[in-house]
Amino acid sequence: MIKKKYNFLLHALLKKIKIKFNKSKVKNILINNIGDLSNSKTNYLSFFSNINYLPLLNNTKASAIFIKKEHTKYVPSNIILIISKNPEIDFIKLAHIFYPDSYYSKISYDSYSLSEIKKNFKTLKFGLNLYLEKNVKIGKNVLIGNNVTIKNNCEIGDNVVIGSNVVIENSMISDNVHLCDGSIIGKKGFGFKFIDNKCLRVPHIGKVIIKKNCEIGSNSVIDRGSVTNTIIGEDTFIDNSVHIAHNVQIGKRCILAAQVGIAGSTIIGNKVVIGGQAGISGHLIIGNNVKIGGKSGVIKNIKDNEVVMGYPAIQFRDFVRNNK
Amino acid sequence: MIKKKYNFLLHALLKKIKIKFNKSKVKNILINNIGDLSNSKTNYLSFFSNINYLPLLNNTKASAIFIKKEHTKYVPSNIILIISKNPEIDFIKLAHIFYPDSYYSKISYDSYSLSEIKKNFKTLKFGLNLYLEKNVKIGKNVLIGNNVTIKNNCEIGDNVVIGSNVVIENSMISDNVHLCDGSIIGKKGFGFKFIDNKCLRVPHIGKVIIKKNCEIGSNSVIDRGSVTNTIIGEDTFIDNSVHIAHNVQIGKRCILAAQVGIAGSTIIGNKVVIGGQAGISGHLIIGNNVKIGGKSGVIKNIKDNEVVMGYPAIQFRDFVRNNK
Amino acid sequence: MIKKKYNFLLHALLKKIKIKFNKSKVKNILINNIGDLSNSKTNYLSFFSNINYLPLLNNTKASAIFIKKEHTKYVPSNIILIISKNPEIDFIKLAHIFYPDSYYSKISYDSYSLSEIKKNFKTLKFGLNLYLEKNVKIGKNVLIGNNVTIKNNCEIGDNVVIGSNVVIENSMISDNVHLCDGSIIGKKGFGFKFIDNKCLRVPHIGKVIIKKNCEIGSNSVIDRGSVTNTIIGEDTFIDNSVHIAHNVQIGKRCILAAQVGIAGSTIIGNKVVIGGQAGISGHLIIGNNVKIGGKSGVIKNIKDNEVVMGYPAIQFRDFVRNNK
Repeated sequence: MIKKKYNFLLHALLKKIKIKFNKSKVKNILINNIGDLSNSKTNYLSFFSNINYLPLLNNTKASAIFIKKEHTKYVPSNIILIISKNPEIDFIKLAHIFYPDSYYSKISYDSYSLSEIKKNFKTLKFGLNLYLEKNVKIGKNVLIGNNVTIKNNCEIGDNVVIGSNVVIENSMISDNVHLCDGSIIGKKGFGFKFIDNKCLRVPHIGKVIIKKNCEIGSNSVIDRGSVTNTIIGEDTFIDNSVHIAHNVQIGKRCILAAQVGIAGSTIIGNKVVIGGQAGISGHLIIGNNVKIGGKSGVIKNIKDNEVVMGYPAIQFRDFVRNNK
Repeated sequence: MIKKKYNFLLHALLKKIKIKFNKSKVKNILINNIGDLSNSKTNYLSFFSNINYLPLLNNTKASAIFIKKEHTKYVPSNIILIISKNPEIDFIKLAHIFYPDSYYSKISYDSYSLSEIKKNFKTLKFGLNLYLEKNVKIGKNVLIGNNVTIKNNCEIGDNVVIGSNVVIENSMISDNVHLCDGSIIGKKGFGFKFIDNKCLRVPHIGKVIIKKNCEIGSNSVIDRGSVTNTIIGEDTFIDNSVHIAHNVQIGKRCILAAQVGIAGSTIIGNKVVIGGQAGISGHLIIGNNVKIGGKSGVIKNIKDNEVVMGYPAIQFRDFVRNNK
Repeated sequence: MIKKKYNFLLHALLKKIKIKFNKSKVKNILINNIGDLSNSKTNYLSFFSNINYLPLLNNTKASAIFIKKEHTKYVPSNIILIISKNPEIDFIKLAHIFYPDSYYSKISYDSYSLSEIKKNFKTLKFGLNLYLEKNVKIGKNVLIGNNVTIKNNCEIGDNVVIGSNVVIENSMISDNVHLCDGSIIGKKGFGFKFIDNKCLRVPHIGKVIIKKNCEIGSNSVIDRGSVTNTIIGEDTFIDNSVHIAHNVQIGKRCILAAQVGIAGSTIIGNKVVIGGQAGISGHLIIGNNVKIGGKSGVIKNIKDNEVVMGYPAIQFRDFVRNNK
């Protein structure tokens, strides 16, 4: 989604980020993109640093990976290995090269003029001061309020309603979605690493995908994915001032009340109802039809159909009993 | 507040939403508006679906109501009854007919020009890019920042201070109120119903009424009422990033610290102090002079003068004792 | 930071706020500013009302102070004493005289024109509709999005990235800082006093200082100080929808996850990590290297290196044990 800048020969690429490698052992192929283990394709460079992701390693289509020396024994023989003390850091450095604009909220300063907007988007109704970058696609019968910024390769479906003061980037907004006033969609996620006493902001090259019929409340923020995407499933309704971190996936027909916060990479099933001010830790899996009481703090996976409440969240019946 | 579109004969109206009815039993009167049981007047159509609201049913001035068959025995004889399997859903469908623009954040795209603003509002000081719809009323000595949107029948009192990036619709802002940067007032509330596998957004035809001298913090959101109004009483101070849901009523001289959330239809008395990040469930009644500790989760009514804290909130002295 | 309006002779000043005083006992010096006990200088007027601040009283450089009769015995002999029933209220009244624009989010309505911006800031890249007041300083290679408001004596360093819909006032933003879309920096803090049944908003004459390399997330709000400053230390990263109240000081290389709230005047050390939705009460001291679990409610000081979680927050190991 974010614009990729270049293709590189692997050796040249490694020199750019000052990695030492054995030229005779590392085949000098063309690298045309980066990805995580699961979304990489041929000629992609990826990384492996966590033994929990071994199944992904075995199935990856990446042509080359950064890897710690002690992990090399796990790798299928057809992958080019680049030994790294910190594969994730080296991968981040690479991401900065391929996607130099992906670590902040970029604006291209190249937007349609008012007359171009009118000419190109015949059925679009829009308020004052619309900023539309030239690579944006917009469907039919879209309504847009005042002071809206749509940038970086966004696609907006049919019948979408966008309020005022909305900022959208690197996002795919499907048909009939409503984005309420002040919502911010596709912002760079919260990621950074300190190396050698310097801070390295983590590039975010994923996007936000909001599927059909969703509503995103006022002043809610949905961060785009780091390498994969942040996804909101069909018919899901999100209230005001909700925070959805990078790489989160939410299923269909979920309801998130106001001020809910979902930390990074958590996956939420279908028909999940989350009460106001509840929070869910990162990297969790929440099943289908789960109900989470208001203000709960969820720090473990939750199975299908469970009803939980509390901080930390426990079975609802236990929460009620404990608080009699 | 939201513009009503039409008047209808009852029979025609029922056909529009495909309700079957017995023409000989349902008198074909003029219906000129809709309302809940308590705010309906003659020639209004309302609905009854919850036995808890029986007292309201006995006092309603509505001329006709949607009602479940088993509830018809409770109804005063002068009201026209329309039997419905789901009175609330039928009422919502009707609301879409009377108020077709009430289920999203509408913008009329018909605002004053800069010169009209200057001519019509002699004492108004305003920043860049003010959007003012033509039905808006503004008092004397009002200050407005940049990128402010005021639409849909708003009334702004004297000496009001409005920051930058504020969005106001369907609201009555009284004298001396301050609305800080980024606050959003009068947005459609969070309401929807799934019927036959399709989502129906609930119209919001109420408004937000903010009484004299209040302050609303930055990035706070106050939703307008669904059928009745959301009300903030005189001298009430609300900090940043607070969420006030539809139909909430807050009394005089209350203090709501930052990131507080009040769910729908809760009623809060006078001189109530609510600590930061506290949340109050919907449909509760909080008495006068109540103090609610920071981060509390209130899930029950609270009587006058009580001091509570905890999740769920309990008497403050018990909270302190439990946590020694 | 906020513009001071006048200098006054002390007797004239006291008349203005209707304080009775004994002309023969109160020396009529020039008062050219106000401050708290610690930041006052010669010819400043300050106040003393809380016995806990006795050490500050002994070291103050203020020339005159408001003080309760019973506290006069504590005062060094060289300070001019003005007896007051409520020293803080009298001080606030004075602040309104010196800084008449400091109790709301002022806009000067005097900003650079587009051509002046281009001429004065050669390396600045900016989007639509930039509002820049004429006393603002901006460093090199700054990027600014759309609909940004920068006012009241702000200083912006080099390489700063400012998203869209950002509002900044009374702030010093250091090199390499990123302010994400919708963030509001330097807003008046949440302060007011009710006197004689009337509300007096507390002036905020401090500023926000954000040091090098920080990131402030989308829709986060940082209030400026009342008399002193709100400070965010170097390399500190703050996620979305975070609330930082007036006078808060945060150290270097801290991480605040989304929806965290810090109440007024709390001081946080270096390398502190605060999980999402956690809240910290006002006037606390949090040590260095502290870790605070997500959704914790901190209501006591925390020593260096401690790890806490819970509401109220307790030692992490105890939280885990209690919730087995």
